Parts: sequence; C-alpha cells; structure tokens
Amino acid sequence: MNIKQMQDILKNMITQERMIHSIGVSDTAKKLAKIYGEDIYKAQIAGLLHDCAKCLDKEQMMYYVKKYNIYLDQIQIKEPELAHGIIGAYVCKDVFKIDDEDILSSIIYHTTGKEDMTKLEKIIYIADFIEPNRDYPGVDKLRDVAFNEGLDKSLLMAFDNTIKYVISIKKVIHPITVKARNYILDKLVD
Amino acid sequence: MNIKQMQDILKNMITQERMIHSIGVSDTAKKLAKIYGEDIYKAQIAGLLHDCAKCLDKEQMMYYVKKYNIYLDQIQIKEPELAHGIIGAYVCKDVFKIDDEDILSSIIYHTTGKEDMTKLEKIIYIADFIEPNRDYPGVDKLRDVAFNEGLDKSLLMAFDNTIKYVISIKKVIHPITVKARNYILDKLVD
Repeated sequence: MNIKQMQDILKNMITQERMIHSIGVSDTAKKLAKIYGEDIYKAQIAGLLHDCAKCLDKEQMMYYVKKYNIYLDQIQIKEPELAHGIIGAYVCKDVFKIDDEDILSSIIYHTTGKEDMTKLEKIIYIADFIEPNRDYPGVDKLRDVAFNEGLDKSLLMAFDNTIKYVISIKKVIHPITVKARNYILDKLVD
Repeated sequence: MNIKQMQDILKNMITQERMIHSIGVSDTAKKLAKIYGEDIYKAQIAGLLHDCAKCLDKEQMMYYVKKYNIYLDQIQIKEPELAHGIIGAYVCKDVFKIDDEDILSSIIYHTTGKEDMTKLEKIIYIADFIEPNRDYPGVDKLRDVAFNEGLDKSLLMAFDNTIKYVISIKKVIHPITVKARNYILDKLVD
C-alpha cells in the first residue's frame, strides 16, 4: 500500500481537521527525519497514521481492544485519550498492513512517550507538537529547538509542556510520561 | 521528651532559617489538625521535626543511610533532596525517640507525597507549603484553600505547584508524586 492509498483509507476514519493535522505531522516528521538521519518513508507513514484511532468513541475503542486483545493499563482504561496510540498501532497492522515494529512503536508511544525512545519515536512525538497547524503559546520556540537544537532538547520541552498542560486541564498525568521526561533530562544533564 | 527539649536538640541540627520554617510548619500543622480533627500534639511534633535531616550534606546523608540501613530508590540516590524525608524519619526515631508510625510516615512522605495519604501525612505535606514564612506566587490562594476548602483540594494544588516548580528548575519529578497527584485528583472527581 502506498501513501496515497493510505490517505484514501485514513480520511474515512478520522475527521477532516484530524486529517489536516495528520498530513502536517507526516510532513514535519519527514523534515525531522532528513535533519536527524532517520528513514524518511517510515517517518512519513508513522506521522500520517499516528492518530488513526484518535476519532474513535469509547465504544469503538473497546471494540478494538476486544478484537485485538489489547492490554490497557489502569490509566488508559480511565482515560481512553491515552489509549489511542496503542489501539492505533493495532489498527495500522490490520487495516494498513504495517508490520514495521519501528513505525508501530512510534505510534504506540506518541501519546505518552517512554524512557529510552528510538529516533523515530522521538520524531513522531515531537512532530505531533510542532506540525504547521499547531498554534499554542511556545510552539514557535519548540519548533526552533526541534529543527535546530536536537531531538532530545525538544523532546524535554515537549514533555514539560505536556505535563503542565495536563495539570492545567485537571487530567491524569501518565507516570510513564514523567519517567520519560526524567530519563531525557538525565541524559541531557550528563 | 517534650516539645521544648526537641526544639533545643533540633536547633543544633539545622540552620536558623530552617528552624524558623520548622516552627512555622509546626504551628500551621497544629491549626490544620484542629480544623480537620487530627491529633494536635502529633501534628505539632511532626511539623517541628519534618526537616530534621534537611541540612545534612550528601556525605552526612550517606552516613545515616549506612548507619540505619535505609533503602533509597534510584531517584533518591540521584537527588538527595528527595531523601531527607526518609532519612529524617530514622533520625527522629533514634535522636528524638519518636516511635509513633503516623508521625514517622508523615515525615517520610512530606517530600514526595504518596497515594492514599493519612490525614496527618496530608497535614504535614500542606503545612510545609503554607506556613507563614512561605512566600511565592499563589501561596495565599493555597492557604485559603487549605484552611477553608479541605485537605484534599489543597493537597492537589500543592502537588500541581510542586510538579510545575520542579519542571521550572529542571529537576527530576518523582513518579510517586505524580501517582499521589493522580490519586487525589481521581478522589476529588469521583
């Protein structure tokens, strides 16, 4: 399946707004892959498909969880928003016939991050925050860091922004995000 | 040992500034104990002694860790600041002859918090943030909530403030604090 074919399927699975965002993440991931020496095609595909499960409602999510026998942790059960990464990876495997583990794991972890991320996981996590349609206080600074100062530094900024944002909307912070953030902070300090 | 005797010993273990803070926490904990129906004497003692290990340097801390055979997690080893609660509890037991588990656990967890805290643990955690000598943006609001709107609501504010502050100074966030914060958020929402 080529990217055009993927787009044709994807646009029936998500909203138009989400589709525009997904193309933005795909383009940004491609740029970051070029800069930081990652496989450009993998970055484009992972960026395009990362939110393929984002527009499912809770019932549809639970249908896929059952269908694919997906393990959700307690926090993902309570906050389905945090489960669209892992569910999306299974959808990618089944619907889009993606079997590249690197692509799948970057889709799984784009919602929470994790310790010791691969280059592609970092690229997708960051691209999601800085694609051209994103507009929030600090996005220009984060874009600048991502394109010019390295993946790790921008990843830390993205984690810190996420944690502060989740506090501001009174939602659960996934401890895996905090561990991911501490890990990268540690790496940058050493 | 009465409170006066404890103060006489304590003032030789910590700086004058820390002593003023400790008396402030003790007084505030007493007030909160009165409002929320906790043992006033326990609150006073725990407040007074909570920072007894705060002024130890890294070498002194490691002396006590060895002497009392204290288990430190990986984060406490890297950030000794996060270990002064647990070390302080052992010092309290040995030097101040405290054997009340409720007092000791409120000293252990005043640095990080934890899920499902006892009333005294909450009181000490909060008193530490709002004692009269504390002066930072938002302290008046937190004081108001602590004295008038309940321990849980002020605890969540204190956790959120802490996490945001730790991000701002680029230090490690202990995942136990995030779990404690999620726990209390969940309790308040239910």
